[in-house]
Amino acid sequence: MISKLDHIGIAVESIDDAMEFYEALGLNVEEIEEVPQEGVRVAMIRCGESCIELLEPTSEESPIARFLARKGPGLHHLCLASTDVRSDDTALRNAGFRLLRQEPTRGAGGCWVQFVHPKSAGGVLVELSEKD
Amino acid sequence: MISKLDHIGIAVESIDDAMEFYEALGLNVEEIEEVPQEGVRVAMIRCGESCIELLEPTSEESPIARFLARKGPGLHHLCLASTDVRSDDTALRNAGFRLLRQEPTRGAGGCWVQFVHPKSAGGVLVELSEKD
Repeated sequence: MISKLDHIGIAVESIDDAMEFYEALGLNVEEIEEVPQEGVRVAMIRCGESCIELLEPTSEESPIARFLARKGPGLHHLCLASTDVRSDDTALRNAGFRLLRQEPTRGAGGCWVQFVHPKSAGGVLVELSEKD
Repeated sequence: MISKLDHIGIAVESIDDAMEFYEALGLNVEEIEEVPQEGVRVAMIRCGESCIELLEPTSEESPIARFLARKGPGLHHLCLASTDVRSDDTALRNAGFRLLRQEPTRGAGGCWVQFVHPKSAGGVLVELSEKD
């Protein structure tokens, strides 16, 4: 079951530059984390019960660097908070939707995550995330 | 001041087709509204305190039809709920950010809305919306 919109991921060339806009609205970065295995730095901006996640590439091979090269900065993915990502995984699979991983895996902060292929979700890369 | 992430707008070819994915996750369309002056049908899917807004073009000249022709279906804009859109408008203007309208105007449901130019907001079309 989906409980809320967890975060919206935005690809940026530079977190420092992108932050200026959100700071002008009174929003602040709560935390910046480096995720070397994904080749990104991640800044979380709290906004009500959701977050805005700024994703800055740290290597040219990172998926975010490739996204920026292809499309430029902008909206990258939508993450929905799930109360049970295994059961959502099964429901989507049974309904014929295409998932990116064989099964949910551990993501940042110990969450369980799964991704839905954009071709299966109206052109949107959808992440499902369950807090452990 | 920004209180929450109000909604995320998604451009779709067909609301009926796009809904299937969200319904498989147990999410439902609360309301479908036609907005003739924008050339769109709009489906609102409640998700916690936010909504997912599916935008389907009803004419070939609508901005959503042009977006679909250029980029295909996918994430279109991010709407932040403001407690005072006039004061956010002023703060952004004073900080040098580019707004799309001369001043906030009335939007759907009687809200006051303003838009930030994507070039001014890291490639993201940002809507600010204040409930009246």
